[in-house]
Amino acid sequence: MKEKIRCAVLGLGRLGYWHAENLAAKVKGAKLASVVDPLAGQAEKVARELGVAAFSQFPEEVMADPAIDAVIIATPTSTHAEMIKLAATHGKHIFVEKPITSRLDLADELIEVIEKQGVHCMVGFMRRFDPAYAEAKRRIFAGDIGKPIYYKGISRDPGSPPPEFIRHSGGIFLDLSIHDYDIARFLLDAEVESVSAHGRILLHDFMQEFSDVDQAITYLTFDSGAAGDIEASRNASYGYDIRGEVVGTEGTLMIGSHKYHDVHILNAQGKTHSIVPAFPQRFRESYLLEMEHFIESLRKGQKPSVTQQDGRAALAIAIAARQSFEAGAAVSLHTPTKPEDSSVV
Amino acid sequence: MKEKIRCAVLGLGRLGYWHAENLAAKVKGAKLASVVDPLAGQAEKVARELGVAAFSQFPEEVMADPAIDAVIIATPTSTHAEMIKLAATHGKHIFVEKPITSRLDLADELIEVIEKQGVHCMVGFMRRFDPAYAEAKRRIFAGDIGKPIYYKGISRDPGSPPPEFIRHSGGIFLDLSIHDYDIARFLLDAEVESVSAHGRILLHDFMQEFSDVDQAITYLTFDSGAAGDIEASRNASYGYDIRGEVVGTEGTLMIGSHKYHDVHILNAQGKTHSIVPAFPQRFRESYLLEMEHFIESLRKGQKPSVTQQDGRAALAIAIAARQSFEAGAAVSLHTPTKPEDSSVV
Amino acid sequence: MKEKIRCAVLGLGRLGYWHAENLAAKVKGAKLASVVDPLAGQAEKVARELGVAAFSQFPEEVMADPAIDAVIIATPTSTHAEMIKLAATHGKHIFVEKPITSRLDLADELIEVIEKQGVHCMVGFMRRFDPAYAEAKRRIFAGDIGKPIYYKGISRDPGSPPPEFIRHSGGIFLDLSIHDYDIARFLLDAEVESVSAHGRILLHDFMQEFSDVDQAITYLTFDSGAAGDIEASRNASYGYDIRGEVVGTEGTLMIGSHKYHDVHILNAQGKTHSIVPAFPQRFRESYLLEMEHFIESLRKGQKPSVTQQDGRAALAIAIAARQSFEAGAAVSLHTPTKPEDSSVV
Amino acid sequence: MKEKIRCAVLGLGRLGYWHAENLAAKVKGAKLASVVDPLAGQAEKVARELGVAAFSQFPEEVMADPAIDAVIIATPTSTHAEMIKLAATHGKHIFVEKPITSRLDLADELIEVIEKQGVHCMVGFMRRFDPAYAEAKRRIFAGDIGKPIYYKGISRDPGSPPPEFIRHSGGIFLDLSIHDYDIARFLLDAEVESVSAHGRILLHDFMQEFSDVDQAITYLTFDSGAAGDIEASRNASYGYDIRGEVVGTEGTLMIGSHKYHDVHILNAQGKTHSIVPAFPQRFRESYLLEMEHFIESLRKGQKPSVTQQDGRAALAIAIAARQSFEAGAAVSLHTPTKPEDSSVV
Repeated sequence: MKEKIRCAVLGLGRLGYWHAENLAAKVKGAKLASVVDPLAGQAEKVARELGVAAFSQFPEEVMADPAIDAVIIATPTSTHAEMIKLAATHGKHIFVEKPITSRLDLADELIEVIEKQGVHCMVGFMRRFDPAYAEAKRRIFAGDIGKPIYYKGISRDPGSPPPEFIRHSGGIFLDLSIHDYDIARFLLDAEVESVSAHGRILLHDFMQEFSDVDQAITYLTFDSGAAGDIEASRNASYGYDIRGEVVGTEGTLMIGSHKYHDVHILNAQGKTHSIVPAFPQRFRESYLLEMEHFIESLRKGQKPSVTQQDGRAALAIAIAARQSFEAGAAVSLHTPTKPEDSSVV
Repeated sequence: MKEKIRCAVLGLGRLGYWHAENLAAKVKGAKLASVVDPLAGQAEKVARELGVAAFSQFPEEVMADPAIDAVIIATPTSTHAEMIKLAATHGKHIFVEKPITSRLDLADELIEVIEKQGVHCMVGFMRRFDPAYAEAKRRIFAGDIGKPIYYKGISRDPGSPPPEFIRHSGGIFLDLSIHDYDIARFLLDAEVESVSAHGRILLHDFMQEFSDVDQAITYLTFDSGAAGDIEASRNASYGYDIRGEVVGTEGTLMIGSHKYHDVHILNAQGKTHSIVPAFPQRFRESYLLEMEHFIESLRKGQKPSVTQQDGRAALAIAIAARQSFEAGAAVSLHTPTKPEDSSVV
Repeated sequence: MKEKIRCAVLGLGRLGYWHAENLAAKVKGAKLASVVDPLAGQAEKVARELGVAAFSQFPEEVMADPAIDAVIIATPTSTHAEMIKLAATHGKHIFVEKPITSRLDLADELIEVIEKQGVHCMVGFMRRFDPAYAEAKRRIFAGDIGKPIYYKGISRDPGSPPPEFIRHSGGIFLDLSIHDYDIARFLLDAEVESVSAHGRILLHDFMQEFSDVDQAITYLTFDSGAAGDIEASRNASYGYDIRGEVVGTEGTLMIGSHKYHDVHILNAQGKTHSIVPAFPQRFRESYLLEMEHFIESLRKGQKPSVTQQDGRAALAIAIAARQSFEAGAAVSLHTPTKPEDSSVV
Repeated sequence: MKEKIRCAVLGLGRLGYWHAENLAAKVKGAKLASVVDPLAGQAEKVARELGVAAFSQFPEEVMADPAIDAVIIATPTSTHAEMIKLAATHGKHIFVEKPITSRLDLADELIEVIEKQGVHCMVGFMRRFDPAYAEAKRRIFAGDIGKPIYYKGISRDPGSPPPEFIRHSGGIFLDLSIHDYDIARFLLDAEVESVSAHGRILLHDFMQEFSDVDQAITYLTFDSGAAGDIEASRNASYGYDIRGEVVGTEGTLMIGSHKYHDVHILNAQGKTHSIVPAFPQRFRESYLLEMEHFIESLRKGQKPSVTQQDGRAALAIAIAARQSFEAGAAVSLHTPTKPEDSSVV
């Protein structure tokens, strides 16, 4: 096993900073060797905070640096393809935030270069590493609910990101539901065959400008005979609300709770516990767990459990959902083993 | 207030028998005067069991009997229209099980005769009287979640009714989801504008013969700007599972639990409580509460809170859902105030 | 099986009225033949309301009436002994509210006369008939938690009864904890050997006058080797709070929840459900279920499942708890099979 | 603020190892400078694993080392007094596992030397740092339940430690209930006035040899007028069960749940979630949080929030509980501000 994986983090927004923090101090077997951000001064500031030796404004520098084994790409989605190609051609292993990219043809190009260069690529579907989802996978795999026949997902943000974020987000299916598309594939162990999507603006009228909605539902059918529905919402005024359910032939399995603190107060208003307010309180730990998996996989020379193919598969579903939403009709997917088929895009 | 409402129950299957039992012994202000069932001996048997003075094989007898104030119609759906017309023309008040009938044109005819004859008609959407749904309505009406913007319903049967029932059921949208269609209108206080429906057979292949499915989802938009999704399933191997949720601008409200007994056992397998096994354990009480409302309304000379118009509205949604499911496209509804418009049927 | 048990209810306070209502309309096989209350006009008023043929101010009248099979004694505790003796000597079956009486020597006298006269006597420990406690008994009996080794009970009233009630209540151990003493015997299937009790006034200073407390704990050891603790409180500002737990060698079983409606509201304050406000909302149904058991037992000529011996056993524990509380030391009990032994009283 | 607190960990059993791990890698502002264990080779092994520069078999070495700022004492309780005195006289700050020591006169000596030497001393009542207990404190302090009037604690181990541990444990009150004694003082913000304790061996007969029990209850009264009861058990076959409750004049607050994974499985057996199996799964994080507090306090030159006085107060309650259990009568405590008073020991 390799002693240390020397990493560079590219993009020091919230997620990039978390990855940098984790690699600097918490992930065994990792060494954070460099941090990169195009914003003047940002990389230097983070490097100082985390005690990292090197920093840069230019991704090309770390890509060319033989002292770097792996890059963590947390830059805007629009730059993912370029970063991945650069990293792969320099022989760096890759961790890239979801979505892997925003076009299927690009995704296919990336898969080709990644596989040709023989590097490992992991896509940041961190929910798979959340203790509850991971336990769900184990229980389903153990046969505890029989054969899985239905996936039901709810992902509700406590409000909308700002208009500038929405403008570049790719829409609610690509930005938010993609987590459920990945988890549905993961938990059902099946591929999506057809997608129907609906949605409406319930509260955030500004989304009209971006042809986006703040409330959506996706109905999926799977090649295993299963089906599923996935709700996405920007309208949960009460907190951050992530729920999953897998119905099986011998039972059902529910994932998640809204509970923030294990404290209940009972008074004249009733019995109350506080609710997870936002994304960091719910999934911060998952970012550490996924990075531990990435580093451990590299140290053992193994493929990570979530790859570029998973990134492509979830992207294909999200694109089909968007198409279905616009067309008002179901869209069929072909399996990701035949990426030359263009029926989706 | 009238001393006693003299009732006749028509159709002595499970629901009819429950209504008869409730009217015979538990509903204040009611007198069960007669029971009717076409099956030879069935009415006599029930009359003896419940201590009812009169019984018959022929609905016409009680319809013509001046000693009867109200009829409870629990006969097969295909007979509802004839029974309602007969009752209304004889000046009897009417309680009819859902669905009021299975065709919109018939529903309009029934509404006309009911209103012309000036009798009261209540449709058996008993969920409105369930203590949890009734409390939900009170809390929403009180403004506790702000303006309602989304309804989410789940109705899962612990298995499929037998093929003969499915054959005559009108399909999953009319038979099962209709409860959620009514409750969505009730809780959102809004009318449905468009319907999209999807479904698949997950387990019960015999349903193919009847062009029915055992798992379905309906997506709805409402004239208030709200939306909603409703899952229906015959595949809940673990028990009877009815859940509802109304998202509002200032919070969300969840209805229902799976808990049967307030007893938890903690052992090496975990912490466990039993699950409501089936429909009677969940809703038996609601049948009593709805009948108390019907009788009390009649005694006070008031219109019941769920009328023929509600019966028609839910029917229109169910029919549109079926059409959408078959066509693979959204179906628009016009408001029930313009029943002459035929865009739905 | 006897067709109908003709009953008289004595004492028309809240509980007596509930018993009368249940016997008049809801208990199969019962006929409420008479109601009795010493308060002028009260019996007549109730008789009219419930449609009962006879009423009286004088218990002796119904005791002597050959048309009465059973009496329900819901008069003040101080009159129980006299009423029971009167009923037994007239050959009436007896249902008596808890506690059976307030002195052990009297209890022994009553047991003697009841057994000599060969009538049945049931004591109103209605918790045994609550669906949750009844299910707990079934699960424990089925071996689901192994051998029971510990009982933990909490009984909290939402506030104190008025001073006049407290004055005549016999104190918190006899009035409130006696329910848990009975349930502990019932669920552990064991007899108490020693009792230690502690308590303090936390909020209601007026109780000093009556040498009573508003918060108490009883520690019990059982002849099976088990132990237990029982909290009693008049200080639950938030609602009515009844919980029970039985720890066994292979698991633990918890009874009860605080939930009133199956409705949760999630908003900025957290996730909230309402709490059972008071005694009637929690146990009203149990009064019906216990009365159905009493009547069915009589119709079958069987002994009810909660007898005068159970009444005496719980009384002995309550008296010992009071003695322990006053003495500051444990008090030993001898088994109820040797009532001549006076070590307790 | 000091850059780094240089620490030595004494005693490398489970807890000592956790402290060492946390100080080596996770606690900001700390440097693990040395590890000490009397067992030959143990310190060296841990030093290698955690990358610590120095190790020793002899506490005296680190005590005399000027490059050490603070010592973490995780050695057997019987050695605490000697270690604390040694550390204080060498001017080291002290973190000591609970109980601070096992005799009150010794505790008073330690307090004297700690205060004379002007070092800081924190006692490892890690529950105070558990997110649920910490949130409870905040809510109570904020007045959310009015004035606290009752504390109810349950601490159940999933089984008994081995006989050799029990022999040296000081008994169930000192070893297990002491956590609740501390938390009761913390949450009620009050001092104990009197203690009554009861207990019994329910399953582990070997404890007779050590005059210990596997099930106990302590009843407490507080100088604020409050009261409380605390259950301790070694008999929870189903898992690790820690619960707390504080009743206030305007509500009650409940701490803790048994849930391990946020995953529920619903099948024919009911709805089940897994239970926290043991102590590490429940409190591992609290050990990190308490150490972060200790180090941050030292860096800021502030007194930690749990001091030698808290260690003595909980010890006094535990000793009184033991005395009460043996004597069968309540034992009074004098407030810790008068340690010269010997009424307790």
